[in-house]
Amino acid sequence: MKKIEHIGIAVKDIESANAIYEKLFGAPPYKEEEVESEGVKTSFFMSGPNKIELLEATNSESPIAKFIEKKGEGIHHIAFDVEDIEAEMERLQKEGFIILNEKPKKGADNKLVCFLHPKSTNGVLIELCQEIK
Amino acid sequence: MKKIEHIGIAVKDIESANAIYEKLFGAPPYKEEEVESEGVKTSFFMSGPNKIELLEATNSESPIAKFIEKKGEGIHHIAFDVEDIEAEMERLQKEGFIILNEKPKKGADNKLVCFLHPKSTNGVLIELCQEIK
Repeated sequence: MKKIEHIGIAVKDIESANAIYEKLFGAPPYKEEEVESEGVKTSFFMSGPNKIELLEATNSESPIAKFIEKKGEGIHHIAFDVEDIEAEMERLQKEGFIILNEKPKKGADNKLVCFLHPKSTNGVLIELCQEIK
Repeated sequence: MKKIEHIGIAVKDIESANAIYEKLFGAPPYKEEEVESEGVKTSFFMSGPNKIELLEATNSESPIAKFIEKKGEGIHHIAFDVEDIEAEMERLQKEGFIILNEKPKKGADNKLVCFLHPKSTNGVLIELCQEIK
């Protein structure tokens, strides 16, 4: 857990949310990217060593659509930067955390990612991510 | 917005949550502190340049008790480190954000803090914080 890599925020409309977060950070998103496999459009803002990722669902089966339906817009997950994602997954599984995907998968922003189930982490969806070199 | 200073996580029982987050980070909280004015007990973990703050309500009127009642345990707020909190409050108010406290107030971990209303930030409770020198 080298640092908070990013915070993911579920939004209904990424264009209007981009305008709000551009005012907050004083700069526009440095990147916008669609991740088809997850059914999301994303945009990224910098805050020093950390990022904020806005996520809009592109279909009604997307995890982001389901999250907003249940809880409304808001913070969806915390992602931590790790050096070796497979070693961390193995370590955390032994510690009793529930890993949602058995193998790391390709996420946005050139990352290998995996998620820990919120029921093992006090309701927090935690993502581990490792930069693809 | 120099960086994410910390993420606040609302928990029902801080002792059992401390044990979980100690496993996640591989180290115990570096600080535990009660903030009477907010009705919370807190503990802090380091993750590189960032922190995770766990929050347990100490009474039923605490914002954390109300949050858990409504939404369950989980991520409560994002705090950003700012250089000059009064200047940022003024700038953001002009940009249309709703500031929840008119003057900065004393928060945990030796900080002056203020909060932005989630209805102006896509459902995200945002804290600004400035280290007290």
